Amino acid sequence: MKAYVLFSGGKDSSLTAIMLEKFFEVELVTCSFGIIPTAEISKDLAKIIGFPHRVINPGTDILEKACDMAIQDGFLNNAINFLHRQSLLKIVSDRDSDDVFLIADGIRRDDRVPNLTKSEIQSFEDKNNILYASPLSGFGRKTINEMVRLNLIIEEGESSVLQKCDYEEELREMLNRKIGVEDANTLFPKSHKQSRVVKRIYDL
Amino acid sequence: MKAYVLFSGGKDSSLTAIMLEKFFEVELVTCSFGIIPTAEISKDLAKIIGFPHRVINPGTDILEKACDMAIQDGFLNNAINFLHRQSLLKIVSDRDSDDVFLIADGIRRDDRVPNLTKSEIQSFEDKNNILYASPLSGFGRKTINEMVRLNLIIEEGESSVLQKCDYEEELREMLNRKIGVEDANTLFPKSHKQSRVVKRIYDL
Repeated sequence: MKAYVLFSGGKDSSLTAIMLEKFFEVELVTCSFGIIPTAEISKDLAKIIGFPHRVINPGTDILEKACDMAIQDGFLNNAINFLHRQSLLKIVSDRDSDDVFLIADGIRRDDRVPNLTKSEIQSFEDKNNILYASPLSGFGRKTINEMVRLNLIIEEGESSVLQKCDYEEELREMLNRKIGVEDANTLFPKSHKQSRVVKRIYDL
Repeated sequence: MKAYVLFSGGKDSSLTAIMLEKFFEVELVTCSFGIIPTAEISKDLAKIIGFPHRVINPGTDILEKACDMAIQDGFLNNAINFLHRQSLLKIVSDRDSDDVFLIADGIRRDDRVPNLTKSEIQSFEDKNNILYASPLSGFGRKTINEMVRLNLIIEEGESSVLQKCDYEEELREMLNRKIGVEDANTLFPKSHKQSRVVKRIYDL
């Protein structure tokens, strides 16, 4: 069975793919709106960990809507949840076969957003005849760090410095353009450490 | 790092072990109170899937207490949750080294009991300097079935027929002895399908 793994180039989504490869035919999927070159960066990072990769673009209107939500709310949670759901739905609408497949993301036990409730998951699976999983959601931060240590070399840094390729970066860029860097900054946490894969450690 | 995986001989705990073996030095752990021969059965089932195995016994008073809870409540949830927690704590108190290790169980996304809240997990990890994970809790039933299909041959049947080796069976046996089979039956669901590993399918 195919598994499409939402891929940001960071340690969580990379580990998710590695965890699933024993069970599924994994393909990485990066959501890119074309605002910043996340499509190209994600292609290179996917090669590093050795999985096929594709880019999906849910459309600029979706990113615009997420911006409006963030500005209206004064915080990001709903906007991030919206973008996450739209990415999942775009994978479904891009399907080229009726076969059941798995969509997986890198959500962890400690993550507050994005998240889906159990009933949202049930409805998403049933409506679309697909499976959905968050393989890391049963694991805490320290356990994930241990699993990452054995399988990946990563670099970590502030998100402002370390370019990854998730929709959050494009949301930030569009907010910068819409309301200015200063106001956009108030919506994001002051310090936000990101990770990016540098190399995969293969089994001996 | 070592990972102790709570093992009942069923598909969920077996799959949990297989999922973790890439990342941890897995040892299966079966909780047995010595009421029925779950210790011996679990040893054989552990051999089938190829992992080292140990039996822990939290003490008959714990099983007695769980019985009392079930009788008083008129349902099993609290009793099962209590036995699950006592099993986790017994693994901790049996530790023979100060090294951090992982304790994992086979709880699925759809399982109602046993379960631990996020704050219980946090407290359990911090107090005992260990890690805890429920690797299947990010997966639904159908996804787990697909992963099982690729890795295990299992038999399924009513729990009254198919002897596995979890504390629930011993709880049932002790309730049978205490309040009689008829009354004990009212506490358990009418139909309760169980699974047991028959063979492991190894990678080519």
